[in-house]
Amino acid sequence: MFDQITMIGCGLIGSSIFKALKKNSSIKKIITFDNNKSVMEVIKKENLSDKIVSSSAEAVKNSDLVLISTPSSSFSSVIKEIKGSLKNGSILTDTFSVKKGLKLKLDDINWIPSHPVAGTEKSGPTAGQENLFQNRWTIIAPGTNVKESDIKKVSLFWETMGSKVKVMSPEEHNKILSITSHLPHVVAYNIVKTVMGYDEKIQNDIIRYSAGGLRDFTRIAASDPTMWRDIFIDNSELIIQAIDKFSKNLDEFKKVITDKDGKKLLEIFNKSKELRKSIIKAGQETDKPDFGRK
Amino acid sequence: MFDQITMIGCGLIGSSIFKALKKNSSIKKIITFDNNKSVMEVIKKENLSDKIVSSSAEAVKNSDLVLISTPSSSFSSVIKEIKGSLKNGSILTDTFSVKKGLKLKLDDINWIPSHPVAGTEKSGPTAGQENLFQNRWTIIAPGTNVKESDIKKVSLFWETMGSKVKVMSPEEHNKILSITSHLPHVVAYNIVKTVMGYDEKIQNDIIRYSAGGLRDFTRIAASDPTMWRDIFIDNSELIIQAIDKFSKNLDEFKKVITDKDGKKLLEIFNKSKELRKSIIKAGQETDKPDFGRK
Repeated sequence: MFDQITMIGCGLIGSSIFKALKKNSSIKKIITFDNNKSVMEVIKKENLSDKIVSSSAEAVKNSDLVLISTPSSSFSSVIKEIKGSLKNGSILTDTFSVKKGLKLKLDDINWIPSHPVAGTEKSGPTAGQENLFQNRWTIIAPGTNVKESDIKKVSLFWETMGSKVKVMSPEEHNKILSITSHLPHVVAYNIVKTVMGYDEKIQNDIIRYSAGGLRDFTRIAASDPTMWRDIFIDNSELIIQAIDKFSKNLDEFKKVITDKDGKKLLEIFNKSKELRKSIIKAGQETDKPDFGRK
Repeated sequence: MFDQITMIGCGLIGSSIFKALKKNSSIKKIITFDNNKSVMEVIKKENLSDKIVSSSAEAVKNSDLVLISTPSSSFSSVIKEIKGSLKNGSILTDTFSVKKGLKLKLDDINWIPSHPVAGTEKSGPTAGQENLFQNRWTIIAPGTNVKESDIKKVSLFWETMGSKVKVMSPEEHNKILSITSHLPHVVAYNIVKTVMGYDEKIQNDIIRYSAGGLRDFTRIAASDPTMWRDIFIDNSELIIQAIDKFSKNLDEFKKVITDKDGKKLLEIFNKSKELRKSIIKAGQETDKPDFGRK
């Protein structure tokens, strides 16, 4: 596959990739670099790089693949730093949750964006798990100016870590993720915000009885703040479309409750169970009750 | 505590209570009855009752505590069936998620409603778990016409199964649960409904990439349909209040995304993490990443 690769940015995703590759791949050298000094300390201490370097430009030298897993808001500054040091013919990829696609002009760089649809609510370099991508999907969303053989190489890269791979356009990617990931996060943040809007006296009770549903939302709402700020800004238009659809449904649902229409409620609930069954069938969820919390 | 108790209704909660009591209590005889014939078959097959009876009236005879864990919509018909057969001085309790409180007149029955805030998305008599109530809260919401000593007995009953107990008014109970449980379920059902509103072509993709957030909502939205129909009808007024607060927050959030106000977004997200920390600290959630799905 690749002899040497570089990762810029070593949070949950970067450190998980390092561990997954060390376990499963034949890549000879993996160089990890992070602009944040305290993250670099963890990289040294936990041996999350085969070589310690002091700049992103130095990190990418001679690498066949460069993977950027910083927050997406740092992308252009990273590109500026590394541009002059990239090996001829090397491939650039990233792990951002929104694919800006062809909006960014990187004519002389062989850029093949990818997005591993995996993660936990934990962030940072100590959160990495070698099996994070196992049985999860990675979406590769290339522009039209890249070689088919390079797309294949990036696919194989993710497959090595146990991931399944799907290639689609950046536009299609952004649309699907606005529904499956961005809208659920919008809603989770707003549930939590609503709950925190109640007065302090009731807050303790809310925390105490959160097992009735609320706590599940707080997991999603505890994801990395910087990453989510960038997602909401990068994909705002499609997310707003999804929110509007959701709000319309919520208004209709409110009417059903106001009317106490039990028949309609049962109809809605039975349909919901079907979607969950499909998700479990597709191997994207465990059917252990309560996520095996006990 | 009690020498003999009766449970009417043997779904997830009833079968969990039976198992929990068998493991932890000194109650001599537990009689379980369910109006549904196929549930009675499971009760026989899985030994979920110390005696097999053929009616709810027969089931409650000589019992010191009668616990009703049917859907709440069956409550009045069950009461009608058992009323004439209750032992003198016996206590009646239930496990409904909405406490109608003093709206129901049961003058000559010693009724002390309780609500174990625990559950999974699984339902039915085969879903029972002996540790379902362990470290969870049970709310006891009595009227004003019952004896303090009887409230103590019901508290001890739940504590025997590992539950923590809090006594509060039915009104307070319904308000808190409308926030911690009913609103999250409203939102989960509507996320799922929104997703299912997209055309079929995109449905497969949605299921495939559901690990990005959506699947967590489908768990909540897969809870028992009949139970949730009853909850939305029984507590409609307070749930509508909670929906209105939520919708207001959602509108504000939409504006923040439209404005691409990154600073404000970070503020919201950092606050969300605090609530989660409190919930973990209160022992109501595991901090295993991703609920230990891997």
